[in-house]
Amino acid sequence: MPFVTSHMSISLDGFVAGPDQSEDNPLGIDGITLHHWHLNDPKHQVDEAFTHRLLGTRGAYIMGRNMFGPVRGEWGDSDWHGWWGSEPPYHAPVFVLTHYPHDPIEMEGGTIFRFVDSFDTALAEATREAGDRPIDVAGGASAVRQALQAGCLDELVLDIVPVVLGSGERIFDDLLEVTAEPVETATSPLATHIVYRIT
Amino acid sequence: MPFVTSHMSISLDGFVAGPDQSEDNPLGIDGITLHHWHLNDPKHQVDEAFTHRLLGTRGAYIMGRNMFGPVRGEWGDSDWHGWWGSEPPYHAPVFVLTHYPHDPIEMEGGTIFRFVDSFDTALAEATREAGDRPIDVAGGASAVRQALQAGCLDELVLDIVPVVLGSGERIFDDLLEVTAEPVETATSPLATHIVYRIT
Repeated sequence: MPFVTSHMSISLDGFVAGPDQSEDNPLGIDGITLHHWHLNDPKHQVDEAFTHRLLGTRGAYIMGRNMFGPVRGEWGDSDWHGWWGSEPPYHAPVFVLTHYPHDPIEMEGGTIFRFVDSFDTALAEATREAGDRPIDVAGGASAVRQALQAGCLDELVLDIVPVVLGSGERIFDDLLEVTAEPVETATSPLATHIVYRIT
Repeated sequence: MPFVTSHMSISLDGFVAGPDQSEDNPLGIDGITLHHWHLNDPKHQVDEAFTHRLLGTRGAYIMGRNMFGPVRGEWGDSDWHGWWGSEPPYHAPVFVLTHYPHDPIEMEGGTIFRFVDSFDTALAEATREAGDRPIDVAGGASAVRQALQAGCLDELVLDIVPVVLGSGERIFDDLLEVTAEPVETATSPLATHIVYRIT
């Protein structure tokens, strides 16, 4: 079984995306404020190290449909192929969770979006693809929650950003139990990074 | 104006107390799990340092009524005088927020519980008492939220405990804006401590 990790930026009030996600606001209203620590240039050296970690090589990704794009329900004749242009930063198979069938989308640079109808299927296929490289549960909140519920997550990295969003998507709602141990932490003015080992 | 600080232990899902607070469960169900880091003996050296910080000398405290005790509504003939025995760990005036009048209660060791009907009154009286020593907003969630709303908090220390409580009391609900900067962090297996300067 490959190592399964997830890396999420989260507000003080526990939101990993703002409300009202749309094509204009892929991260929901004000959700972008959670990501200045790795989008700014130049970066604080602590944020640089955690950006490097965020962008590390993976064998496969699992992603919720809402993270893939703003289309809801049937795909219809949508030619949506993600937020990331012609060469997404994944360079590996990305399993997108959706109940609506969709043909695979092959992008430049080795990213292939493949569409599966359950987290279990995504995990099984990602495991087959990943070999000895890690699998990353890329988000959003629901995908990470499903990973925690499935008990498959080995590591969760939280970047705690000192803002209050007020509403949006939370990871830890409706979870019966999580046992985690913080094993590393570092802070910049923009984010406090905590590496949890999930046990 | 004295330095105003608050130090709160908080779960991964943002709760500083569990649900159903009562005389048997002063911190709500499972709320005690947020406090093992400073109640355990011996402690991890990081937790030892933050316990020392938590118990540092203050000139005055502000406390919500639910933190003071389980009595609700009129005090009646209750002789409740806090959870902390005859010599509470405060050794200073403690202003308890309540709409119901109550005579001051003088305890051993310099703690005096005084009862006031608004956060503003508590802050004004605490300021007069504290001199050049800090004021501590001891909790619970509502008292800290009122301090953030009043814009009087200079520092907030969060001990992020890697448990999920599922329900209880949250600090950051219904806040319009908080601007904070993490200035220090350290972790033990039981808690990740973050010191925020509130700006």
